[in-house]
Amino acid sequence: MRTVSALALSSAFLLALAVLSPLPAKSQDVPGARYNAAQRLEFPANYREWIFLSAGRGMTYGPAADPNGPPQFDNVFVHPAAYRHFTKTGRWPEQSIFILEIRKAQSEGSINKGGQFQTDVTAVEVLVKDSKRFADTKGWGFFEFGTNRQPAAKLPPTASCYDCHAKNAAVEHTFVQFYPTLLPVATAHKTMKASAAH
Amino acid sequence: MRTVSALALSSAFLLALAVLSPLPAKSQDVPGARYNAAQRLEFPANYREWIFLSAGRGMTYGPAADPNGPPQFDNVFVHPAAYRHFTKTGRWPEQSIFILEIRKAQSEGSINKGGQFQTDVTAVEVLVKDSKRFADTKGWGFFEFGTNRQPAAKLPPTASCYDCHAKNAAVEHTFVQFYPTLLPVATAHKTMKASAAH
Repeated sequence: MRTVSALALSSAFLLALAVLSPLPAKSQDVPGARYNAAQRLEFPANYREWIFLSAGRGMTYGPAADPNGPPQFDNVFVHPAAYRHFTKTGRWPEQSIFILEIRKAQSEGSINKGGQFQTDVTAVEVLVKDSKRFADTKGWGFFEFGTNRQPAAKLPPTASCYDCHAKNAAVEHTFVQFYPTLLPVATAHKTMKASAAH
Repeated sequence: MRTVSALALSSAFLLALAVLSPLPAKSQDVPGARYNAAQRLEFPANYREWIFLSAGRGMTYGPAADPNGPPQFDNVFVHPAAYRHFTKTGRWPEQSIFILEIRKAQSEGSINKGGQFQTDVTAVEVLVKDSKRFADTKGWGFFEFGTNRQPAAKLPPTASCYDCHAKNAAVEHTFVQFYPTLLPVATAHKTMKASAAH
């Protein structure tokens, strides 16, 4: 009976495991990048629940920069799993995914009579680190989503973003020099390129 | 032996429960507002992992607005539990906690030659909804944290923020009119004051 009891114990434990585990997947626990059968990136619909890195306005180097148009805001988000890894190591793990969201700026509205606040989205750009999938572009893939937010193919290696990020981004392909909470992390871990300081 | 086996089973199940549950508390599952023995609000150290609502620049109505100084950025964050409740109801639950973070703006740096990006924090303001604790200020409490981030007492009812938020904020005491992802939620749930539209 000892054998049977041990088996029963074991079964009960496995049952408990089955009931209680794996933990229910939360948005921040699942990979941020999903691809359809045609290998196009699905729009990461819940990116506004990821970690905010910073916002700028009218920055001149971005893909949406338009010297003839009114300055817009840009917001940058990163998947929580990638953020947590970076805060510990100063480096980005495989599958890291970043969002650059561009929004219109409005000056007067409600009680605000000066400065600018954010309104409608005008563009969403996505950057993913995946050394195997994007081997032909140094392990990083850029994507642009239109207003219809349909799955997007990776931008070709000739797109200007690849060369600009490779040359100017502070840590790997990311502009950590503009993310004030990550800059000290990269500095402490000595993962920032010296050329990117400001 | 059946009884013993059943007991063993039960014990194993409880052991499994003890090992696997309760789920480890994550930052987003715990209340965002904590008070010390003197009823001062502890600085919410992990607020940068909360939900970003929006960023503005040089807005004129904020507590840090300085018409004579260079325009600064403001970032607004809300605790994830409050955010999730709002997206379903258009209203803020008790214990909702909001952060207004003010940062300096820098124009030239690294490859950026125009516009502005964010650098150092200059002020952090906190707003908490708690009908019982803040009954003397309509259920909402404002707090200012200095650079030392020591626990802060609630600002007195005479502080200008109470009157301004009560009069001008779109939903309860919050400026949802400036938060582009929440504005359609409040509109759909008809929780926005008509006077706050822009």
